[in-house]
Parts: sequence; structure tokens; C-alpha cells
Amino acid sequence: MSFITLTTDFGLSDAYVAVMKGVILSINPDVRIIDISHNIKAGHIAHAGYVLKEACPFFPKGTIHVAVVDPGVGNARRPVIVITDDYFFVGPDNGIFWPIITTCGPSEIIHLTKPEFFLSAISKTFHGRDIFAPVAAHLSKGYEPKEMGLIIKDPVKLEIKTPRKKGNILFGEVIRVDHFGNIITNISNKVLGQFLKGSKPVIKAGDLIIKDIVNSYSEAGMGEALVLIGSSDYLEIAVNRGRAADFIGIAPYKIMGTEIEVRRNTNPITRTN
Amino acid sequence: MSFITLTTDFGLSDAYVAVMKGVILSINPDVRIIDISHNIKAGHIAHAGYVLKEACPFFPKGTIHVAVVDPGVGNARRPVIVITDDYFFVGPDNGIFWPIITTCGPSEIIHLTKPEFFLSAISKTFHGRDIFAPVAAHLSKGYEPKEMGLIIKDPVKLEIKTPRKKGNILFGEVIRVDHFGNIITNISNKVLGQFLKGSKPVIKAGDLIIKDIVNSYSEAGMGEALVLIGSSDYLEIAVNRGRAADFIGIAPYKIMGTEIEVRRNTNPITRTN
Amino acid sequence: MSFITLTTDFGLSDAYVAVMKGVILSINPDVRIIDISHNIKAGHIAHAGYVLKEACPFFPKGTIHVAVVDPGVGNARRPVIVITDDYFFVGPDNGIFWPIITTCGPSEIIHLTKPEFFLSAISKTFHGRDIFAPVAAHLSKGYEPKEMGLIIKDPVKLEIKTPRKKGNILFGEVIRVDHFGNIITNISNKVLGQFLKGSKPVIKAGDLIIKDIVNSYSEAGMGEALVLIGSSDYLEIAVNRGRAADFIGIAPYKIMGTEIEVRRNTNPITRTN
Repeated sequence: MSFITLTTDFGLSDAYVAVMKGVILSINPDVRIIDISHNIKAGHIAHAGYVLKEACPFFPKGTIHVAVVDPGVGNARRPVIVITDDYFFVGPDNGIFWPIITTCGPSEIIHLTKPEFFLSAISKTFHGRDIFAPVAAHLSKGYEPKEMGLIIKDPVKLEIKTPRKKGNILFGEVIRVDHFGNIITNISNKVLGQFLKGSKPVIKAGDLIIKDIVNSYSEAGMGEALVLIGSSDYLEIAVNRGRAADFIGIAPYKIMGTEIEVRRNTNPITRTN
Repeated sequence: MSFITLTTDFGLSDAYVAVMKGVILSINPDVRIIDISHNIKAGHIAHAGYVLKEACPFFPKGTIHVAVVDPGVGNARRPVIVITDDYFFVGPDNGIFWPIITTCGPSEIIHLTKPEFFLSAISKTFHGRDIFAPVAAHLSKGYEPKEMGLIIKDPVKLEIKTPRKKGNILFGEVIRVDHFGNIITNISNKVLGQFLKGSKPVIKAGDLIIKDIVNSYSEAGMGEALVLIGSSDYLEIAVNRGRAADFIGIAPYKIMGTEIEVRRNTNPITRTN
Repeated sequence: MSFITLTTDFGLSDAYVAVMKGVILSINPDVRIIDISHNIKAGHIAHAGYVLKEACPFFPKGTIHVAVVDPGVGNARRPVIVITDDYFFVGPDNGIFWPIITTCGPSEIIHLTKPEFFLSAISKTFHGRDIFAPVAAHLSKGYEPKEMGLIIKDPVKLEIKTPRKKGNILFGEVIRVDHFGNIITNISNKVLGQFLKGSKPVIKAGDLIIKDIVNSYSEAGMGEALVLIGSSDYLEIAVNRGRAADFIGIAPYKIMGTEIEVRRNTNPITRTN
């Protein structure tokens, strides 16, 4: 049983996603296709990278993950396969796979150069259809990535901002607002734990100041802001039964990248859950 | 052939739905997953319950229906399986399955207590991934619900308002506005028939007053309001090629629960279709 | 392996699409269902026709394409199967298949008249569920279209406006705005080539005046308008990393049908790509 997932910014109003599925099924009618998301913000490579990194480890080994957020389609950017221990990733070499490359350990990257694995005519506007879908379908039939191109060592990187420490403050930033209006930061549970070392934190995010970290959304009162470690293991700002993004006091289009401060109490206190 | 359906308020912009699918397919790669809806209003348990109740009877016997609208995740609310004659339902015990329990006849409810059917680490924020997806996948592989927990008899109820009669008026309310702006009420065809007994009705919904009931949307003039018995067998207010919800004269966020009056003519008239 | 695709204006918030899938899988649990789009504008038959025409040729031969944008449901309009060399199309005879009929060469059309291929009760509001889904499922099991009804020769047509030439100007119009805000016209690459015959064009679309045609979105500067031949082989107006529909200077609800002018230079110039 072979699976292909799709992550794109194509939306669901046009034929684009269906066209990719048709291409895949015409090459391998037995493969099964699962949508990760087609609502990635248009052209937002980092958003796609994060969503893919969050979803991919839950899929069966051998799954082929196709990701197409590709504003540079038709220009010099290379089409690639990234091979990790468990998965294949197919898409443009524009940084979209950088979160995978940096977190999944050693990986091999193939620059796709063999047109016999593509559709016969290659447009300059839709490589999801012409290159990435057919390559994924061929992979699912058992073709080896190395038959499809050449190993490269210089994938395009994505600038990933990591939290920085300054005295008793850890500075992170917002990397995503989810469907519930929850604000997800780049402060991982691990980094937070090493910083706090048992201290109680105070978190500042825009207009919101929140004391301590809770375990679940409903531990705060109805409509109250809270901070917890979200399901992807990063510090998250939420409002019980509300949308934190509407309370932070920053315009929606400016929230991404907003600075988040975690201030630690100087008197260590053992947290009791 | 085994099927799992998913109904959530997770939306389609994040990885959440795909993560559940990955978990399911990792446990049972042969099961097929069908989305019912992921656009349930955030936290709106009743909306999910109605949509699920409407969709479920059309699926093959044995289908496993997972529903996750779960604002109380991580607190005391119980994870459950509801077993009816034809289906399994997996999700939180927060009332989401009450429309099923009250309409599908005798059912058995299992409180899920056996962690061997869950993922190994259970978060306090995402039981769709950690509990409901793996339980559904194990069910699809043939595990018995009774192996997974204990029978309970006290499921959480949902307050369901039923129409009430007062003289020549039947009072119902709006329970849903659909994608077309059609306004669906809690007045079933059966209740309506028993009330009207052949009389001609006049329907009042906000600013709209509509005489008689038609059979199809295009029986009214273009842009005119009409009332019919909708595809789920409930009284529905619509506008031919328009959005009734935009004509009712009530703000969108207040439409749910709006009172609907059906007034019957005192001179019985035989309806001719 | 048998495939059914679905194209509707049902949206993804209600149970309607899932109900159709349940009906199909109850009749043929082995068929696989692929969504083309459920976000067709409500009642917009031409939009559905174009999206379907764009997607269908990429699917495996024998695929059954169901399309339901059906404002006249319950009235006299006929349910049909359109049979082309490669595919079956199932839906209302309201013009939705006209783009297919006019571009896929000789086709046969069957008026569905045999209720034994429908659900047992037929509503006047939801033929997607009651007629089109079960007919598609029966087709996927190998029943012959001719067993299901009678051949007709007079399908409902869709008024399709074709570009017209006047001196040195070719007049086309906007037929669709896609998810990226790209503006797709009814001027095909072929018609354009015959008109330009090597001349350099100037394109006027609302407030935008664009000189020449490029090959890919990123050939224009960031935020600059451009014209290219899009992935479906029609003239398309776009903005590099922006939404052309926001720059054209015409209100969103008026863009469809907006006139597009292609003016050719009187001095033929050989284009060099």
C-alpha cells in the first residue's frame, strides 16, 4: 500500500489540485492520495514547510509527500526529491523542505533532471502537474530517486528564527495562527524548559500578559487568555473558546513574526501539575 | 472494505486533519477515510451533531464515524464509542452524539479506558490524534469496543429544542444555515403534517412572511423567498437563486435559534401537489 | 480500478457532499472518489463547466465525472449521462456539460429515465444524492448507460462567448478568477497566435495596460502585472506574488465578463523566447 500526500497553496476552488490527482492516478491507479492542506497562504513557503513538518511524521513509512508552494515556477529553481529515513519529499528547491532537512537528520537530495519521469510537455506555470505529480507517481511505483536525477548538496535554506535569551527574558516569535485563532510560537517545549528550569514564567504577546502555563484550553475561564504547550510541542497562546489572534491587539496581517517574551521569575518554584 | 468518516471543527488550513489521517493509516493502511466536514463552527457541538446525524445513515453498515468538536479536551470529559445497529461513533462524550443516540434507537456506549488502543503519549490538547483516531483505526481492524473500555449509561445530553404548539401557531427555531444560505429549522415534516392536517400554512421567519409550502426551489420566482421540506426532511426557508439568510433581517451571528412561526389557516384546504 | 470525481457548488460545511459519497460507497464500496471542487460559485453552471473541462482530461480513461450545480432541481430539467470517448459525465442537463460536449468531439447523451438506478425515494431538492450519485455508482459497477435511459440529441447549451476581432484589436472577456487572483480569459493560445502572427501585443484589462506576454509569473517584478498563457492554455492576467483581481480596478462581483483588449502592433516583430 502506497501513499502520496499533497500540500499546496492552490485552494479548493479551481481544478489545480484535482488535475494533480488525475495525473498521479493515471500513472499509478493503486496509490492513495491524502490532502495535508491546500489552504497554505499563497506563496508562503515557510507556512507550507511548518505544516508539512508537523504532519509528516504521523504517516506510514514510505509515504511520498508532495509540497507545491512555488512562486518561482518556470525560473531557475530546481525540482527536487528529499529522501529521509522514512519518507520521500517532492517539490521545488525553494526552502520548503528546509524544516524537514534540518530536523529529520541526514537526508539525500536529488535534483530532478530526467524528463522521462515528467509529463511530456512542461509548462512554465504549473510544475505541480507537469513535474511533481508524475515524479511522485513514479516513485510510488518503485522507481529509484537516483534514476531520476543527480545528488545535490546545496539545497535552498529557509531563514528560521530561533528564540534568543537576554537575561531573564527569552524572546521568540509567532510562526503561525491556526484555524482556531491559536497563536503558535517558535519556542519549543525543550527550549522553554531549559530556560525556565522550574521558574514560573510570565508571557507577553502584544497586549496580552499571561502568568504561568496551563495544560489544557479549558483550564482558563471562558474567554480568558492562556498559554500552553500545543500539540506540536511549541509554546502556544490561546483563549478558551475564543480566538487569541483577535485579542493580541495586532492586525492580522502583522501577527506573523510578532515578538513573544517569556520572562522568568527569579525565585525558582517547582511547578506542580 | 472498511470506512472511517471524520467530522471536526479543525478547518483545512492546518495539519490537524492530516495528522489524524496519518495516525489512522499507520495503524490500518487498508481502511478508507471519508471527510464529512471539517468546517463545523469552532466549538459548536450541536452543529457537528446535526451534520453527522444527517450524513451517517447514507454510509455502508459498519462504517466508523469519528467526530471531534472538543472544547473540553484535556479535562474530565470522557472519550467514548457509541454503538448503534449499523455504525460505530468515536469521539468525546460532550453531547456530540446525542442526536444519534436519540434517533437511532437502542445503542451501547463504551467509555474508552484502555490506553493500549491510544497513541503512546496522550496530550491534553489533541485527543483527535491521540485517542479518537487510533481507537477508530483499531475498530476498523476488528477489535471489539468492549475490549476498549467500560459500558456507561449516562452520556452527556444536548439540549434539543423541539417545536411547541400554541393554538393555531407552531413555534420552531433555526438550527442551521447551510452553504447556500438556506435556513433549516427544527420542524420536521412529520411534526408539520400533524400540526397542519391539510390546512394551508403561513410561515413567519424574521422579516419574511411566506404563504404555503412548495416542492422545489425553482417554484418561486427568481430572488423570491419560499418554504419547502428540505432534503433532510425538515422545514427550510430558502430564496430561489439567492441566500435566504441575507433576507431574513437578522444579523448572521444571531440567526441560530431564531423563532419560526407556522400559522395554520382555520379553514382546512386539501393541498394539491 | 474505477474512479468517480465530484464537482459541486455544495461547499464543505454541510453534510451534502458526504451524503453523496455515502450513497456511492453503499452501492459500490470498491470505487474511489476524488473531489474536483465543491467551491463552485452557488448556481454558477458555467464555472462548473469550465473547471470540469479543465480537470477531466487528466484522469484515467473510464473515470465517471459527476457534476451537480443544479438550481433547477425538482423541475423539468433532465438528468443525463454524457458519454465521450474516454469518460462518463453524470448530472443535470442544464448546460453544465456543454463545454465538454463542444470540445471532446462526438458524444452520446442519455436521458436518465429508469428509477431502478436511483434511490428509492426521489426528493425535489437533492438529485445529487437521489439520482446522480447512485447512477454514477451503478456505472462504476459496469452497468451500461443505455440500460439507464434514452438517447437524446438536444442537450441544453451554454452561451459561450468567443473572442471577436475588430481591426487591430481582439476582444475577449474574463471567464474566471482563480484562487491566486489570476484573471483567466476566453482567449486561447491558438486564437491569440492566429491574431498576433508574430506581432507584439498590448493588453488592456480594466485599469491595467500590459505590454507583451511573458512565460512565467516571476518574469515580472515583484508586485508587477504581467500577461502569460496559463496552464490551461488561455491568456491570463496575473501579478507576480500579488492578486491581479485586486489591481484591475473593477469590483470583484463585476469582474466576470469584463472585456479584455489585445491590441497588436502593426509592425510584425518576431518574438524571441
